[in-house]
Amino acid sequence: MSGRVLVTGASGFIGRHALAPLRERGFDVHAVARRPPADGSVRWHAADLLAPGAGPELVSEVEPTHLLHLAWYAEPGKFWSAPENLRWTEASLALYRAFADAGGRRAVLAGTCAEYDWSQGICRENDTPLLPATLYGACKHALETAVGAYGRERGVSTAWGRVFFLYGPSEHPARLVSSVIERLLARERVAVSHGRQVRDFLHVADVAGAFAALAAGDDVTGPVNVASGEPISLRELLALLAERLGGGDLIGYGERQAAPDEPPVLVADARRLREEVGFTPDFSLTDGLDDAIAYWRERR
Amino acid sequence: MSGRVLVTGASGFIGRHALAPLRERGFDVHAVARRPPADGSVRWHAADLLAPGAGPELVSEVEPTHLLHLAWYAEPGKFWSAPENLRWTEASLALYRAFADAGGRRAVLAGTCAEYDWSQGICRENDTPLLPATLYGACKHALETAVGAYGRERGVSTAWGRVFFLYGPSEHPARLVSSVIERLLARERVAVSHGRQVRDFLHVADVAGAFAALAAGDDVTGPVNVASGEPISLRELLALLAERLGGGDLIGYGERQAAPDEPPVLVADARRLREEVGFTPDFSLTDGLDDAIAYWRERR
Repeated sequence: MSGRVLVTGASGFIGRHALAPLRERGFDVHAVARRPPADGSVRWHAADLLAPGAGPELVSEVEPTHLLHLAWYAEPGKFWSAPENLRWTEASLALYRAFADAGGRRAVLAGTCAEYDWSQGICRENDTPLLPATLYGACKHALETAVGAYGRERGVSTAWGRVFFLYGPSEHPARLVSSVIERLLARERVAVSHGRQVRDFLHVADVAGAFAALAAGDDVTGPVNVASGEPISLRELLALLAERLGGGDLIGYGERQAAPDEPPVLVADARRLREEVGFTPDFSLTDGLDDAIAYWRERR
Repeated sequence: MSGRVLVTGASGFIGRHALAPLRERGFDVHAVARRPPADGSVRWHAADLLAPGAGPELVSEVEPTHLLHLAWYAEPGKFWSAPENLRWTEASLALYRAFADAGGRRAVLAGTCAEYDWSQGICRENDTPLLPATLYGACKHALETAVGAYGRERGVSTAWGRVFFLYGPSEHPARLVSSVIERLLARERVAVSHGRQVRDFLHVADVAGAFAALAAGDDVTGPVNVASGEPISLRELLALLAERLGGGDLIGYGERQAAPDEPPVLVADARRLREEVGFTPDFSLTDGLDDAIAYWRERR
């Protein structure tokens, strides 16, 4: 793959893991962050994409052939309903429009499982109804609707990676897997809900690898679930962590209220990713959890 | 109704007919146009809403309690696929966000029948699948998705008027009804398609009146078809014009190709507008066509 890819959210949870696989696929990688890290392996650009005109300016400076747009507001707990969702929708439209109007060839943007009607259980890209119940899901879905149509009109090959549940090194410590690992490492009690929710987990490096594969695969357009396709209950997941870390008795099931609108089953059909994009995850769930544990052990 | 309403697109086809009914409902009307007409009956503001920051500036200047957002790119023939659709989506999000964040109470925005899956025939607001086939329909639908969710989060009562087919005084001369009237008045041949398409027509003053009713009716939220609910074929419609103007033989059916993706039937279920909004059109179709004919006669 020859091309110059502009990666937004490049210092974020997924973005930082996407840079290496993009380089491995032969991309000239231009990474964007508000405060770029000191990392000389790619070309960094400092920009706040929410500032008026910032996205279009970056596009005219970098002249990318490819766009991987991962940046968004992602503060745990707050991102579902934060007003920043609308600002990111506006900024993302402006960025995509500048990219398309400048002759960009291929764009991949991060969507979410929160676009689906969660009463459906197993989510298939072109089949399961879309009925976002949150501002986050609605704004992501609005963005997909608008850029998908704009891309078709302007001849920009565009794919939309719907991210499910993820975990791994540098996950925000308030999120499920990292917080349970930290507590068990500290031998502290951790309050969780009933734990019978069935979900779809993928290691962040595989999520990022899937996005790199999508960026390189011009012929796959539209929504693609970025997920393992392997359902697991939260109880089973936490049992795997306790097996590795000990302290199964420290996990307090039912000591935390599950959100009333939480769906019992929310998993992906991942066949598009495997068969059409041709992407296979590197990590099994157990290897992935070992990797996450190693990361948090090092940081203690 | 007491309140200050900011009306965008106020010099446009629908907007110019909306000012009187808004005044009649007791609104303090602030109208926006790029080039305001000389009309002292409402307070005009000159602004290009596509200019960065223009919408938020207007909101902070006018401090509206109500927003009626009609402005969009509407050039006949071009608006379906023009890049301006994405720019209007961005500008509309910024305007709505500023309105909501400043404590705005009620917003009504113009949507379109082009949001629906056109293979469905009769379109019901909360029932017919949404599957916009055009950039115009996709951008309008994206806007609805994002502002609907933002409004729910911020407590802004928000309705979305899906406009079907309309006609009447000051219609763009390239559009169906006005162009046929002009040709028949000039005794010139007019090439049309097969004419068997079944559509839903509403006089523009009633479309505008429906939007004024929506602006005043805080309790109706979400999508509302702005339409007559009365199906008519284009042949029947043009026969009514020929009855009034003569020259039925000048209408060349089949002399123009229908677009290949034109749906045979595209009509609205208008019960929400009638029963929940409580709006009844002033014009019957025949009275409405007489009114449009009178307008074009005067201008000859």
